[in-house]
Amino acid sequence: MPGYSVMADADLKSTQGARARAQEAESPRESLVVRFGADRPLKLDSGIALSPFQIAYKTYGTLNAQRSNAILICHALTGDQHVASVHPVTGKNGWWETMVGPGKPIDTERYFVICSNVVGGCMGSSGPSSIDPKTGQPYGLEFPVITIRDMVRAQAMLIDHLGIDTLFAVAGGSMGGMQVLQWAESFPDRVFSVLPIACATRHSAQNIAFHEVGRQAVMADPEWRHGRYTIEGTNPHRGLAVARMGAHITYMSDAALHRKFGRRFQDRSNPTFSFDADFEVESYLRYQGSSFVERFDANSYLYLTRAMDYFDIAAEHKGVLANAFKATPTRFCVVSFTSDWLFPTSESRAIVHALNAAGARVSFAEIVTDKGHDAFLLEEPELFAIIRGFLDGAARARGLTQQQ
Amino acid sequence: MPGYSVMADADLKSTQGARARAQEAESPRESLVVRFGADRPLKLDSGIALSPFQIAYKTYGTLNAQRSNAILICHALTGDQHVASVHPVTGKNGWWETMVGPGKPIDTERYFVICSNVVGGCMGSSGPSSIDPKTGQPYGLEFPVITIRDMVRAQAMLIDHLGIDTLFAVAGGSMGGMQVLQWAESFPDRVFSVLPIACATRHSAQNIAFHEVGRQAVMADPEWRHGRYTIEGTNPHRGLAVARMGAHITYMSDAALHRKFGRRFQDRSNPTFSFDADFEVESYLRYQGSSFVERFDANSYLYLTRAMDYFDIAAEHKGVLANAFKATPTRFCVVSFTSDWLFPTSESRAIVHALNAAGARVSFAEIVTDKGHDAFLLEEPELFAIIRGFLDGAARARGLTQQQ
Repeated sequence: MPGYSVMADADLKSTQGARARAQEAESPRESLVVRFGADRPLKLDSGIALSPFQIAYKTYGTLNAQRSNAILICHALTGDQHVASVHPVTGKNGWWETMVGPGKPIDTERYFVICSNVVGGCMGSSGPSSIDPKTGQPYGLEFPVITIRDMVRAQAMLIDHLGIDTLFAVAGGSMGGMQVLQWAESFPDRVFSVLPIACATRHSAQNIAFHEVGRQAVMADPEWRHGRYTIEGTNPHRGLAVARMGAHITYMSDAALHRKFGRRFQDRSNPTFSFDADFEVESYLRYQGSSFVERFDANSYLYLTRAMDYFDIAAEHKGVLANAFKATPTRFCVVSFTSDWLFPTSESRAIVHALNAAGARVSFAEIVTDKGHDAFLLEEPELFAIIRGFLDGAARARGLTQQQ
Repeated sequence: MPGYSVMADADLKSTQGARARAQEAESPRESLVVRFGADRPLKLDSGIALSPFQIAYKTYGTLNAQRSNAILICHALTGDQHVASVHPVTGKNGWWETMVGPGKPIDTERYFVICSNVVGGCMGSSGPSSIDPKTGQPYGLEFPVITIRDMVRAQAMLIDHLGIDTLFAVAGGSMGGMQVLQWAESFPDRVFSVLPIACATRHSAQNIAFHEVGRQAVMADPEWRHGRYTIEGTNPHRGLAVARMGAHITYMSDAALHRKFGRRFQDRSNPTFSFDADFEVESYLRYQGSSFVERFDANSYLYLTRAMDYFDIAAEHKGVLANAFKATPTRFCVVSFTSDWLFPTSESRAIVHALNAAGARVSFAEIVTDKGHDAFLLEEPELFAIIRGFLDGAARARGLTQQQ
């Protein structure tokens, strides 16, 4: 019965995808990898010391002699280090090629750009699909639960490894923005400027709720096998696709969905009176689900959503957000989008108020758009102009010359 | 591994629930049933004639001698005819007991209240879990796809059966509100007044998208077996629970979730660094999912969400909503809730504008609340006052005396 479920005919492709993903998780083909041995464990918020572990990353542009022009980009939940280079599994362009590259707002002719896969991810940094040296098999749920701060700690170790004392900037949207805020909190003296985009200092109850549905969709898939699917030769791609479909709705505004799809039928003018994908928006979501499972690991999805749920910077400062950024020397550029209902612009305003209370140097841009949360990934000229302008100003303040 | 997935330990209960549901689908214990034979088929929008078929319903109060005091209540997606009586499967109170009963806003000492299970449902009206007389087995996906108008056609046949020419009122929220609007469009001379609450004249792209995720969650469950789960002795309760969890988020506002749960941990003060339900909101959603599958049929969920997706009254009038209600004699009371983001109050305003353009008699109440879409089911004094007042006025206009 074709058409009932997009997941049915994706079986074969998913097996191929699983193989490609397994390779990327362990020995990524197009990335640099730094391995930290027993002498340099990653101390996690859970109290566990992760060791050994590795970080996969990409760089673009050239580090100047003063090592002062490095920009760290933090990726979002389903992103990776391939910010401006072809994705080794999908063959698609980098996820932020409109933003990062020669002459782009984050100009690789001027800045040295670093992007690393987060700890817990599945593109070469240690995560649940990595091989556990104790067993010789993928960690699965034996991998320790990680936090946004753990991701940032690992990034700091990478920066040490690269011999960079102070980053010129840290930038990112969504979960990337959470890491940006955590950088500013954890290492105020190591980051000259930060650009947290479309994010919040904590996950709301609704955010947690949507994530929990996604996790339950994965765990409800009998092929998940309590996270041991790689060992058992199964693949919870149906559950993961459902999780992705649900999440994807939250990345777009109602207006954007309406503009893009409305109630238009798919390749027909009348309803089929069936459970086929009658409406274009249904086909689109099914495609989002089936293409996602080609490139992403189900357990990583659990770990990274959990890390976002746990994120709450103010909680570590007795609920007073301003105290997280007290006397910070870092320059902030906070950006939000009016139609983002996942991280509403009110969350960004709260960040700005706290930064003002902390006496920080802060710019704030609320961009009017109907594109929703995903606006930070899309062609958004105002965003480009703001980031270019903020970085220009910061570069002058740091004494970076026009060409490095 | 307890706690990973609520669905694991619900297996046994679900089997019992499946048995209770199968009985209710065919021979409901606490409802009246009218059976329509070969001479009275239900002519569906799909072109199919459903025959034989049956409608299960409940009544409350007494029909007056003039047969002029009948109020039809239309239930929502997961509702049923047990509007003000104990649910035979769950043992819980009726879903609208705050609204319907002696002395309540819809006063059963004054009005004769009828509520029938919709066609496509699973509580005794013909639906996918009914026995197909051709095979002697449950229809499953052989049941024809139905529309909101088909539901209303069946209700009209029930009203005929009860010897009622003109209903005093038709009331309902959400999918119930869609039926109310369809009543006003299809049978303007048979309904004196209508109360469409928290609804819209069509499903938006975002509405369809959320429904599609729910359907894919059900269909991705290997126990769904292309809808033949009853015959094959399986139960797609995991998929259905995930669908319910996702939908439930859309029934509440962000503010209500925050007020109710915030980021509070469940029975603990610190995170467990696991995939247990750490946060209260996670436990709550898991409970919503697991209790829902006890009482609801997975295929019915597919059919009813599909009916809502297809709903688009204006489309049948060349896109001009006002033409759907041209010269209508019916009195309208349109109610919406400010924090309802599933059926935003702008949708109700559009209805009111169209009714004004059609020269209809219309009251509109936009109730300020943070309770979201589900507000129509909750203790909401303003809603109670509005409905009581509107019905009082309509009763005077229709010449209904205080006590019937």
